[in-house]
Amino acid sequence: MTGQVDQDELAALMHDIGVRARRAARVLAPTPDARKSEALRAAAEALLASEGVILAANAADVAEAEARGTKGSFLDRLRLDPERLKSIAEAVADIAALPDPVGRVLATWQQPNGLRFERVATPLGVIGVIFESRPNVTADAGALCLKSGNASILRAGSESFRTSEAIAHAMQDGLRAAGLPADAIQLVPTRDRAAVGHMLTGLEGAIDVIVPRGGKSLVGRVQAEARVPVFAHLEGICHVFIDRDADLAMARTIVLNSKLRRTGVCGSAETLLVDEAVASSHLAPLVTMLLDAGCAVRGDLATQRVDPRVSAATEEDWRTEYLDAIIAVRVVKDVDAAIEHIATYGSHHTESIVTANAATAQRFLDQVDSAIVLHNASTQFADGGEFGFGAEIGIATGRMHARGPVGVEQLTTFKYRVHGDGQIRP
Amino acid sequence: MTGQVDQDELAALMHDIGVRARRAARVLAPTPDARKSEALRAAAEALLASEGVILAANAADVAEAEARGTKGSFLDRLRLDPERLKSIAEAVADIAALPDPVGRVLATWQQPNGLRFERVATPLGVIGVIFESRPNVTADAGALCLKSGNASILRAGSESFRTSEAIAHAMQDGLRAAGLPADAIQLVPTRDRAAVGHMLTGLEGAIDVIVPRGGKSLVGRVQAEARVPVFAHLEGICHVFIDRDADLAMARTIVLNSKLRRTGVCGSAETLLVDEAVASSHLAPLVTMLLDAGCAVRGDLATQRVDPRVSAATEEDWRTEYLDAIIAVRVVKDVDAAIEHIATYGSHHTESIVTANAATAQRFLDQVDSAIVLHNASTQFADGGEFGFGAEIGIATGRMHARGPVGVEQLTTFKYRVHGDGQIRP
Repeated sequence: MTGQVDQDELAALMHDIGVRARRAARVLAPTPDARKSEALRAAAEALLASEGVILAANAADVAEAEARGTKGSFLDRLRLDPERLKSIAEAVADIAALPDPVGRVLATWQQPNGLRFERVATPLGVIGVIFESRPNVTADAGALCLKSGNASILRAGSESFRTSEAIAHAMQDGLRAAGLPADAIQLVPTRDRAAVGHMLTGLEGAIDVIVPRGGKSLVGRVQAEARVPVFAHLEGICHVFIDRDADLAMARTIVLNSKLRRTGVCGSAETLLVDEAVASSHLAPLVTMLLDAGCAVRGDLATQRVDPRVSAATEEDWRTEYLDAIIAVRVVKDVDAAIEHIATYGSHHTESIVTANAATAQRFLDQVDSAIVLHNASTQFADGGEFGFGAEIGIATGRMHARGPVGVEQLTTFKYRVHGDGQIRP
Repeated sequence: MTGQVDQDELAALMHDIGVRARRAARVLAPTPDARKSEALRAAAEALLASEGVILAANAADVAEAEARGTKGSFLDRLRLDPERLKSIAEAVADIAALPDPVGRVLATWQQPNGLRFERVATPLGVIGVIFESRPNVTADAGALCLKSGNASILRAGSESFRTSEAIAHAMQDGLRAAGLPADAIQLVPTRDRAAVGHMLTGLEGAIDVIVPRGGKSLVGRVQAEARVPVFAHLEGICHVFIDRDADLAMARTIVLNSKLRRTGVCGSAETLLVDEAVASSHLAPLVTMLLDAGCAVRGDLATQRVDPRVSAATEEDWRTEYLDAIIAVRVVKDVDAAIEHIATYGSHHTESIVTANAATAQRFLDQVDSAIVLHNASTQFADGGEFGFGAEIGIATGRMHARGPVGVEQLTTFKYRVHGDGQIRP
């Protein structure tokens, strides 16, 4: 069933997917880690064994996209080859090898009446993942959810539908090989866009959280319409602040890396703030360095004076996630003005201060209200792998439950186990 | 402004409350604990100093309720006297004395590149509290939110409006005395019910989480309509399971306390499950004990055979939160059948197993998907105070962020502070 379906049929189909996911989640919750890891290792093998099927499905997706006139970077994200498929399988095997996030005792204490309390990590339940062109999300997200004891409902982009279907079959082969329900990783078996709307309602309580993986328009729609919690970031308007006590050499290295290592990732810097007290010594070298490296600079008046290649920044620039070789530059009075600028224009994602002054750094780290705040390090470290989480399903800028990189630990919740020997409440 | 207001005016009023709360939250977030505690101690004193004003406001609320023919238990919850006011003030002072939940380093680790990571507790932001007749919530909830660095927007029930207003004034006196913004604790200054609808939309991003405090209809409406996260429990259909290895004496004590210590609290037991293997020895004594203590028993066939006073349980009884001296009793095949019954009919709140068998207990504690699972202890321990949290704003049965008793720690979120010495990402 890959075409359009009747809307009543679709509602029934989505309801059924929800019921089966919830049932699978109940089986997964108490499943020991060895079994989940076995399923993931088997899935990694199935992905390699299915190379022919997966690459053929991918070739059909790519051909269709090309026929529609789809352009370069989108096609590149969609296209698989044996090497990329190998990386996908390796990523699944790597997730198998992560420590079990379920059952961790997060806290333990005893009350004077002898009751012993444990707060222990449990799976969240059922996770809905809505993604666009990257077919590897089927494997990555399914594997992260499974490792954390959750069932997943995956909604692939229309363009990567055949590839995602072939990958999902391999993942389900892994589940079956370990004696786990194939419904633990389900791909929505239709391209009908109305399926997304059903997922956003939570499928009558069957979905506990939605993770959108894709561009700003997808995330914006999900955040606006979802009736269940969402782990996501709409955008990463990340700042680097060069304080008056910053070493210029370190500032150069960190600014260059934060902006230009990769410009298309959410942790890339979009705005550079420079302390007025060192503008005379630091501003020109930093701006010239960026311009010479091929980065367009949009600056305030002080920045425009540095180099004729700097264009004027408008109010809109402070609010813009370029995801490109463009940076907005502004001179600010001091660290407090930098904090204020970030509070006004930032997106609560990732910000970095460069300074040799520990007190100033502490002030910045304490007062900036972002998921990730760094001292003397590149904003491009905003990544679950760099945090040591092994892998991430995304980065969240919301304030509830998960914030920053969402790895397997963040895909768990907790419950309280209380051990008594007959205690009653007076 | 205590009467009905024009709807445009109300929208503007609520918007303004949101803006002011968000501004206050930004001031509170980095405020040291000493200052927050000073404000709470000053608020406790102001509550006592305002006894005359508060009790007069309360007398007016009570008189209005009586004139409308309001009945016993509702009036009792509404009515204050000098002793009750003293307890309210003491509770606020107790919250001041709790350890600071903000700034706790929840985890810390280092990566091979030398980056040092800290996950540190931060306030959630702005918390909306919607409550009914108990005016003490104004003080309790406001104090818990303040201690955890959050601004609060409190919506009092129409019946307790004057009392809540007088209490809120005292709380704001405390804030001012410590040099903190009075907007950190705001009471919605109108009885217009449409104000609740505005809060449930989140006031354009100004509210981070809603906590409803009241009966099932209030909580149900909030859960159905809120566009922001909700910390709540709709109902507590709590179970006690008497396993085949349960000591009868302990079973008697725990069942009696779980059901009858207080029948109106969410942690009171509503269903008793008895293992078939000990039904012949344990069922009759337990049922007779409950009946003799004045508890109505609705049972399955086996239970009905025990005593003519037992009435027949219907399917509906397994799903009912009586909040009264009534209990549903069922004989089940074994611990797995008990777990299955709870999965089918429970509300993910609190369940207890009575058994001397450690392996059976572990199976129950692991597999029952409730916020609180107890072994050999009364379900009535489902309470933040009994957990050692000092105080709670409520109990949550959702799976996100907070689960079980919601104390000051659960009113925080976290961020990552990353310390480097010039690291860039390769």
